[in-house]
Amino acid sequence: MNFKSENLTNFVCDIFKVVGISDEDSYTVADSLVAANLRGVDSHGVTRVPIYVKRLKEGATNPNPDVKIAKESDATLLIDGDDGMGQIVSREAMKLGVAKAKKSGGVHIGVTRSSHFGAGAYYVKRGVEEDMITFAMSNAPSTMAPWGGIQPYFGTNPYAYGVPAGKYDPIILDMATSVVARGKIIMAAQNGSDIPEGWAIDQEGRPTTDSQAALDGSVLPFGGPKGYGISLMIDIMSGVLTGAGFGPHINNIYGDYDKPQNVGHFFQLMDINQFMPAKEYKQRIDQMIEEIKSTPAAEGVEEIFVPGEIENKTEQTRLENGIDLDKEVYEGLKQVGKECGVNIEDYENVNQKT
Amino acid sequence: MNFKSENLTNFVCDIFKVVGISDEDSYTVADSLVAANLRGVDSHGVTRVPIYVKRLKEGATNPNPDVKIAKESDATLLIDGDDGMGQIVSREAMKLGVAKAKKSGGVHIGVTRSSHFGAGAYYVKRGVEEDMITFAMSNAPSTMAPWGGIQPYFGTNPYAYGVPAGKYDPIILDMATSVVARGKIIMAAQNGSDIPEGWAIDQEGRPTTDSQAALDGSVLPFGGPKGYGISLMIDIMSGVLTGAGFGPHINNIYGDYDKPQNVGHFFQLMDINQFMPAKEYKQRIDQMIEEIKSTPAAEGVEEIFVPGEIENKTEQTRLENGIDLDKEVYEGLKQVGKECGVNIEDYENVNQKT
Repeated sequence: MNFKSENLTNFVCDIFKVVGISDEDSYTVADSLVAANLRGVDSHGVTRVPIYVKRLKEGATNPNPDVKIAKESDATLLIDGDDGMGQIVSREAMKLGVAKAKKSGGVHIGVTRSSHFGAGAYYVKRGVEEDMITFAMSNAPSTMAPWGGIQPYFGTNPYAYGVPAGKYDPIILDMATSVVARGKIIMAAQNGSDIPEGWAIDQEGRPTTDSQAALDGSVLPFGGPKGYGISLMIDIMSGVLTGAGFGPHINNIYGDYDKPQNVGHFFQLMDINQFMPAKEYKQRIDQMIEEIKSTPAAEGVEEIFVPGEIENKTEQTRLENGIDLDKEVYEGLKQVGKECGVNIEDYENVNQKT
Repeated sequence: MNFKSENLTNFVCDIFKVVGISDEDSYTVADSLVAANLRGVDSHGVTRVPIYVKRLKEGATNPNPDVKIAKESDATLLIDGDDGMGQIVSREAMKLGVAKAKKSGGVHIGVTRSSHFGAGAYYVKRGVEEDMITFAMSNAPSTMAPWGGIQPYFGTNPYAYGVPAGKYDPIILDMATSVVARGKIIMAAQNGSDIPEGWAIDQEGRPTTDSQAALDGSVLPFGGPKGYGISLMIDIMSGVLTGAGFGPHINNIYGDYDKPQNVGHFFQLMDINQFMPAKEYKQRIDQMIEEIKSTPAAEGVEEIFVPGEIENKTEQTRLENGIDLDKEVYEGLKQVGKECGVNIEDYENVNQKT
């Protein structure tokens, strides 16, 4: 089923309004999810609507959080998310962070008592618009063993950054710190197909290509012990330092319906103009992008990309041609819509207004 | 040849004094190099003394840099290294940064016009002592192609962080963003031995196990495109943002003797007490370390480590048993000592004073 992005946003927005989220907050959640679909990151898009709604209905997520500053200094913020949706909490954290970074030049922002925040790219874009280099990280429920171990301890803790450019699109990296997102292994298990070696280990810590054994075991960090070190850092900054859960003390989004997730995030903003005039910086970054893209490519490689470039191309295509939803995702949305009295068919084939 | 670390520090210190470096600065350089040897990171230890001396003598490095603040705000610093040795410039940057972070809570520090700074672990320890989570990064001369490319553009840009703990040693990650340090490939080529697949590509971008073809080609980033994204970020923050060289516009340490390297660094400090009382944080990080280390290990794995733990063990051993230098490294030091009128034999077998 194909949706114009605006129609999909309206549908998702209307669902969240029904389950008690304010208009502004519903739009933020819908916009962030559809933004992920537009960039081709469907695992973090509207496929999450049913589980978000379930957690809200079960009381595990607070629909109207009082997001507030728990502690602050000139260049730091600790934000208490009051168990709200990660998208709402993170929007407020970034808003407060941008204001502070404009005054002090840079800010480190810890967030406690939050929930799954979707794709980090959404937040770093907010900083990039202000000519700030921006980082977004989050911890997540445990699915990844420490290096050398066999029992999941860390999440696939995402790491995202955004870097403004001049005449080119900003450089945006948004990645899991596992070799691949766990969702790909779930899909393989559902299809009964194998996975490539190097993605996961089984319960005894042996490399496995059996997708079910991988799900019972542990995903592997990207880049071996180095990726383990980066995932650990994200959990320390997002969880240990902020007072949120860390390691296995974060509640599962798909389960633990009686408890808030207690996820933590970490954001950083630094104002480019405090280092050099943004105009000069942008000439330099454009030069770098041009140089990277003009280095010779390996056999079989058509084009060298900077991070985010492929996603930007996908976004252009999907803005023009709409977003294709898998049958399964579509049915899930239709069902949750029905439960909320929001008929998905009313949003299909509606002419795009803009 | 085995040296007590203090004797080795004294020898190296005396050499730098002869080539025009002040007493305090000579000690910093010597201490940082020997610290790398103590941690087992011999590639960044005293083996660098001959090339550092050569660059000083040729005028490529400024022996008495006027390291100063080029630009600052409450939470940012841009430091001009005046083409000094990276160790001296970085020490000053960290000193200014710690003072600022104590006031504002956190600081982002860019450094321009610097040189090879050795091992990043040395600088993050300085912040960790102040109960600050600390990052140190640097760009480096190009040896690594962008992902999909075949021509080196990036350096093996190192990434280091330090995280205070309570009753345990701080967690310290210090890594190159290549799969392995290029020095290991140089050693293999010298010995005429092959390298494992996955370390490097040849000049046509094909995976190679031929160490010489690898040196003529390009090292690979750790974790594929994700490591490429992290190496790129380090070059943007260290080089593009600070005004230093970036990509291929950084001069080679082993060559370009008529030009300063124009390396850039990036440091970050954040005061833990601005998020929660350091005492409480330390209980939480200790809990995390204990939990990680007590998860079950895979077959063949004796112990699960947190980053820096192996290096800390090596440091204890080498503090007790001394540092063994390769014959080649020893001869290089002896030769440079001779040229400077500092006789290495005078420092051997001297009883440790402390």
